[in-house]
Amino acid sequence: MPSFKAQVLVSLRPSVLDPAGEATKSAANRLGIQGLESLRIGKSIEIQIHAPNEQEARRRIELLSDRLLANPVIEDWTLEMKPLPSNRVE
Amino acid sequence: MPSFKAQVLVSLRPSVLDPAGEATKSAANRLGIQGLESLRIGKSIEIQIHAPNEQEARRRIELLSDRLLANPVIEDWTLEMKPLPSNRVE
Repeated sequence: MPSFKAQVLVSLRPSVLDPAGEATKSAANRLGIQGLESLRIGKSIEIQIHAPNEQEARRRIELLSDRLLANPVIEDWTLEMKPLPSNRVE
Repeated sequence: MPSFKAQVLVSLRPSVLDPAGEATKSAANRLGIQGLESLRIGKSIEIQIHAPNEQEARRRIELLSDRLLANPVIEDWTLEMKPLPSNRVE
């Protein structure tokens, strides 16, 4: 069964405050890094999954993202599939 | 001064355990999502910065990543610059 790699990016919705990002931005200013306009911290989840085909792999990861990776009240997510360079045959 | 967007991805080094990722993987199995081989959780930081040119923007974000965003003992980071579609002139 082929194996697929995917990356799910989870970011706070634009209307949601990001205190950790704001604290990092302030720390950067104190460090002397100039010109920062915005800095927002999200999650990046690297997944490897085997499935009969890419559609099925995508379906499983979409379910995972909706149910476990993101909180839909405050977060958005995007999925990028990356087929493995050499797909294993099992 | 033009404005630049960048994304910094911070991931745990391969040799470092990821308990949060393992817990998510177990929860996915309990949810009935099959075929997961690995799941690792990192950070994605979206940055907007103004600087005289792209080299200077990159230099500032590299400093920020080394000093504030990643813990070099356990984490790696990669930087991707994305020039804004319409650069502001101030």
